[in-house]
Amino acid sequence: MLYPPQRLVDAQAATAAAGLDALLLSPGADLRYLTGYDAHQLERLTLLVLPAEGEPTLIVPRLERPAAEAAGCALRIVDHPDGTDPYPLVTAALPASVRAVGVADRMWAAQVLALRETLPGAVLRLAGEVLAGLRMRKSTDEVEALRRAGAAIDSVHAAMGEWLRVGRTEAEVAVDIAAAIRLSGHATADFTIVAAGPNGASPHHGVSERVIGPGEPVVVDIGGTMPDGYCSDSTRVYVVGDPPAEFLAGYEVLREAQRAAVAAVRPGVTAASVDAAARDLLVDAGYGERFLHRTGHGIGLDGHEEPYIVAGNDLRLEPGMTFSIEPGVYDAGRHGARIEDIVVCTVDGVERLNTMSTELVRL
Amino acid sequence: MLYPPQRLVDAQAATAAAGLDALLLSPGADLRYLTGYDAHQLERLTLLVLPAEGEPTLIVPRLERPAAEAAGCALRIVDHPDGTDPYPLVTAALPASVRAVGVADRMWAAQVLALRETLPGAVLRLAGEVLAGLRMRKSTDEVEALRRAGAAIDSVHAAMGEWLRVGRTEAEVAVDIAAAIRLSGHATADFTIVAAGPNGASPHHGVSERVIGPGEPVVVDIGGTMPDGYCSDSTRVYVVGDPPAEFLAGYEVLREAQRAAVAAVRPGVTAASVDAAARDLLVDAGYGERFLHRTGHGIGLDGHEEPYIVAGNDLRLEPGMTFSIEPGVYDAGRHGARIEDIVVCTVDGVERLNTMSTELVRL
Repeated sequence: MLYPPQRLVDAQAATAAAGLDALLLSPGADLRYLTGYDAHQLERLTLLVLPAEGEPTLIVPRLERPAAEAAGCALRIVDHPDGTDPYPLVTAALPASVRAVGVADRMWAAQVLALRETLPGAVLRLAGEVLAGLRMRKSTDEVEALRRAGAAIDSVHAAMGEWLRVGRTEAEVAVDIAAAIRLSGHATADFTIVAAGPNGASPHHGVSERVIGPGEPVVVDIGGTMPDGYCSDSTRVYVVGDPPAEFLAGYEVLREAQRAAVAAVRPGVTAASVDAAARDLLVDAGYGERFLHRTGHGIGLDGHEEPYIVAGNDLRLEPGMTFSIEPGVYDAGRHGARIEDIVVCTVDGVERLNTMSTELVRL
Repeated sequence: MLYPPQRLVDAQAATAAAGLDALLLSPGADLRYLTGYDAHQLERLTLLVLPAEGEPTLIVPRLERPAAEAAGCALRIVDHPDGTDPYPLVTAALPASVRAVGVADRMWAAQVLALRETLPGAVLRLAGEVLAGLRMRKSTDEVEALRRAGAAIDSVHAAMGEWLRVGRTEAEVAVDIAAAIRLSGHATADFTIVAAGPNGASPHHGVSERVIGPGEPVVVDIGGTMPDGYCSDSTRVYVVGDPPAEFLAGYEVLREAQRAAVAAVRPGVTAASVDAAARDLLVDAGYGERFLHRTGHGIGLDGHEEPYIVAGNDLRLEPGMTFSIEPGVYDAGRHGARIEDIVVCTVDGVERLNTMSTELVRL
């Protein structure tokens, strides 16, 4: 059972401790974490009103009521038909005097501004102040869910040779990968970056009609969401034929940097120090300018969440925190490389939730 | 060319006319509409700062700069490395004195509240006040893009007999449909509702492990996004074998209601009157309580956008407005039905962009 009612109790206590009178949560990972309800973010208002004390209320569009009830979250549900103003339902679900509320970090602006009108006397803050800390510290069940997600995406990487071939386009390969992500047990394929040759130098390149050529390093960064909501995310680099020698030299440094950052993970060290473990090694080897981004991001019910593994983040790691370790080296106009594993901080160190070799994969 | 610079000029004029000093647009349909840049919504700040007068600035995370430049939108781009505060870049891109700005309707709350801190003297309003009106009135090229999207999703419906069979689960059928949506020319398959028997009575049911049985009506509501960003969305009802007689009676009334609403579309009539055309017919036939939702929603670069075809919306339709006509009838615990076409209001009436028959499809 991934969604114990205890989470609602803990969230209420943390809400009170933060000086907030209530959380107002639109569809997304916060709502799913607390209730198990995997609702769609749409223009119609779906909102969990969670007061610091007392009974929560789930406000849903009338046509969503069957889906909300089927989610089995056993909450009081009130609905609003199309064409009516749902915001009086928010006021009714809140205590009489409300001074400060926390809205979901990813609530849409249209709803944020409507709530500002509905609650003119209340300060709007972010629910993340309360929930990020809870969601960041994963339970054993959640780590197991992420381990299953990791194994599923690993199985897709393991079969890459079936699809990634010279003469095919990035887009063609990506269609096959997306299908394999679903067949591997994911509910959805969320992203399929296939970046060949110079496209690999753009960290968030998606896909293009570029035909994969011999000797071109291909960065493949893929992930999806499992039926229980937990996400996968893993990057490997492939090559058909012989890559340029200077690419190989950089790749080995990158591999060492990724390994060093993984090895730096243990309880009590800061997120920034894990970033530094990869970065210092790349800087010393002369690749500092080519490592364009932070070392990693947390992962759970969101693909990107806290903790962020970035310079300046003095958060100390704790057992149960899960995040990516994904340094990269990008040579504009030529090629790029990135190696990404999801890891969990354990009581005495680290466990990789992606267990494939980090060697360059020659197909 | 779907993204003429003229759109930026028009948006600036409308921004000034609305009494706003600037629009602040995070990734999404507004940004894509104005610049062609299909950016990812992430925790890192990507923001188009469009002052009512003067040069716009696109603020991007440093690792996104190659992708932003490749999008070719020819804007001034400034970037921020990971671990730095990007909000001073917003202030720098704005005029010295800012009293009111419009933020993207779907901007995340975390960014809305950060902008409130960055611009303490400015009133935050919604960019939709300015852009919804522009985006709602489609150009000939945009209607053509939606016509292509409609034809693509129609081709998936036309092949439904290949996948939808007695003995298969809703989820199995949905995987095949998702693959077909991509093969039909869509860049992404965005939703695949396959709702058999009683599941059809929940309008936003997704899929389940329910095995499709003989004589069970199956509601199939599917859509995706084409490579140019324009969306498809179409619903038909299928049955293998003989459905219950009382289902057939309801279906024929629904079909008549859907046809009546389509026929009601022409310039000058209100959105509410199109809703009423379907609803009055269903109410008169005794199905009013079972039609749980509005008749339709606009569609374009967003799957749901203005105009909404709903009671109370006195907006008068104009040529180039595109929206769904999708009444439904839902019998809790038994079955449901919905028929959905995308239509465009033309100079003298209406054109359906989904052109399949609306008859119940017997497989």
